Amino acid sequence: MASGQVGKDCFGWAARDPSGVISPYQFKRRSVGSDDVSLKITHCGVCYGDVLFTRNKVSETKYPIVPGHEIVGIVQEVGTNVDGFKAGERVAVGTYVNSCRDCEDCNHGLEVHCSKLVHTYNSVDVDGTITKGGYSSFHVVDKRYCFKIPENYPSALAAPLVCAGITVYTPMVHHKMNQPGKRLGVVGLGGLGHMAVLFGKAFGLHVTVFSTSISKKEEALNSLGADRFHQANTLLTYTFHFLKSNGVLSLVGYPKEIKLAPASIQSGLKSISGSWTGGTKQTQEMLDFCGVNKIYPKVEIIPIEYVNEAFERMAKNDVKYRFVIDIENSLNLK
Amino acid sequence: MASGQVGKDCFGWAARDPSGVISPYQFKRRSVGSDDVSLKITHCGVCYGDVLFTRNKVSETKYPIVPGHEIVGIVQEVGTNVDGFKAGERVAVGTYVNSCRDCEDCNHGLEVHCSKLVHTYNSVDVDGTITKGGYSSFHVVDKRYCFKIPENYPSALAAPLVCAGITVYTPMVHHKMNQPGKRLGVVGLGGLGHMAVLFGKAFGLHVTVFSTSISKKEEALNSLGADRFHQANTLLTYTFHFLKSNGVLSLVGYPKEIKLAPASIQSGLKSISGSWTGGTKQTQEMLDFCGVNKIYPKVEIIPIEYVNEAFERMAKNDVKYRFVIDIENSLNLK
Repeated sequence: MASGQVGKDCFGWAARDPSGVISPYQFKRRSVGSDDVSLKITHCGVCYGDVLFTRNKVSETKYPIVPGHEIVGIVQEVGTNVDGFKAGERVAVGTYVNSCRDCEDCNHGLEVHCSKLVHTYNSVDVDGTITKGGYSSFHVVDKRYCFKIPENYPSALAAPLVCAGITVYTPMVHHKMNQPGKRLGVVGLGGLGHMAVLFGKAFGLHVTVFSTSISKKEEALNSLGADRFHQANTLLTYTFHFLKSNGVLSLVGYPKEIKLAPASIQSGLKSISGSWTGGTKQTQEMLDFCGVNKIYPKVEIIPIEYVNEAFERMAKNDVKYRFVIDIENSLNLK
Repeated sequence: MASGQVGKDCFGWAARDPSGVISPYQFKRRSVGSDDVSLKITHCGVCYGDVLFTRNKVSETKYPIVPGHEIVGIVQEVGTNVDGFKAGERVAVGTYVNSCRDCEDCNHGLEVHCSKLVHTYNSVDVDGTITKGGYSSFHVVDKRYCFKIPENYPSALAAPLVCAGITVYTPMVHHKMNQPGKRLGVVGLGGLGHMAVLFGKAFGLHVTVFSTSISKKEEALNSLGADRFHQANTLLTYTFHFLKSNGVLSLVGYPKEIKLAPASIQSGLKSISGSWTGGTKQTQEMLDFCGVNKIYPKVEIIPIEYVNEAFERMAKNDVKYRFVIDIENSLNLK
């Protein structure tokens, strides 16, 4: 840790209050420690979590907050203990930047489950500083929480992989939904849902999309390659009905609360499972899988100045399917 | 099926209205068909479902309702196609008495998941009659839904096995909680919970009981053999906190609705799984396991005349841990 060392000025955008409006903001990042990688950020995906946190809707937001945990950049400098990354390489940083590194989960590359996980923004890091995310010009991160981007994989498209991508990839692999011929149901076609369809087809599954919006049908079937589309008003009830015996509903979104009649999952030994992003080992595996299988999220590239409008549009589900901020050309030029 | 055949008078106890008060009631059971087993009932366990159904609290109750789905009796007669059972043998009938017998679940001995499952009471059977349960003098059941009781196993104690017992046994085996050394948490110490502790110890697990009632501590540790006891007011939240990564909460009780913050299961890939009784194959396996391992539910034997009071006591959680009606000596003598 670089605690006590003189840091470096970093230029970013932050929300100052629960209005969630973001605007330019300067802060300090630590100097590069012996295990650190510094990266010049080129792209940052916009997760719906960014909207929730800047508006103080999740847990207590520590303002000013610099959101962004789908970070892609180019390595500038590495610490003396770092041999896995070198200057000029493209890397990604996801939803967390530290953990205890000593528990059973950390020892198995499942840092995401560590009780001392430090999130990429709005968390207190071990040096006492509040973490600041990727709506900023550069980052300094311990090598453990840094990922390699596959060769020839577009940087803008890599950004959503380290949150939206890994969030659906992890439970799919965990629940063995990567075995060809199985049937996958995707409930809701947003940033996460569209990735689930893409992974599902890459795994050779039969994919059915459930959505409240009939307008998603055309795109689900023709652009994303889903096999079937069902419009349903009460998604959760409908989904349980659709689930086969032993079926699993994996909850990856962030509704505040769901209500559930136990009877709806008791017949047929059905399960509801939670999941959120994934461990470092699986994150790298997922990135490599996307490289080999040419899995590309569908994104809308925006300049940093557009983010407030993007937040508004996301609150109305008006995005296909992920906004990615072109930090390189809209923030890092300044 | 014996549709159209002349049936036989059966003497039972039924509830006539949502007061749930039960009183003597005479009805007809079908004659013994070629695949049927008829049994003189000796014991019937009292499940909390009996209270809920007689009081019209679950789904639409068809009055008069004869409850009881933890049935034990002695074979009187078998149909011409029955070679697995013979007169004089002790058998059990659980929570269902028919299914389609032709779907994937039925073909795998998982009839309990069949969409055409016919419950032991308050269900419409394929011949159009409303099923009547075990608070009655005898039963006629297709051999498929009949189980053998292990030799020397007390009949009164076998009754709770075919609902309470199989309801906890099935998810424990399904989620591999039958591997020695694993840690089991049992939330609530009632009819089902106390069976979970007994199975847990027989499987060689480390068992912790969670209960809102400190009065259960002594019995959990000393009489049932649990390893630890925790008093907790908000059981569900506490349970999630206690669950390790990849942990599973299996819901086997019948609260009408639970509320859940997805975030509480997203960190650590935790699951909530539903379960309700089990297939015929596993039910027989469970009975045999109880015989070999001398697993005995703790019951309070009551005469049929006491059932209304028993229902009242169950509504106040005042039972350790299962009422079993001595049909043989209180109903079949009349």
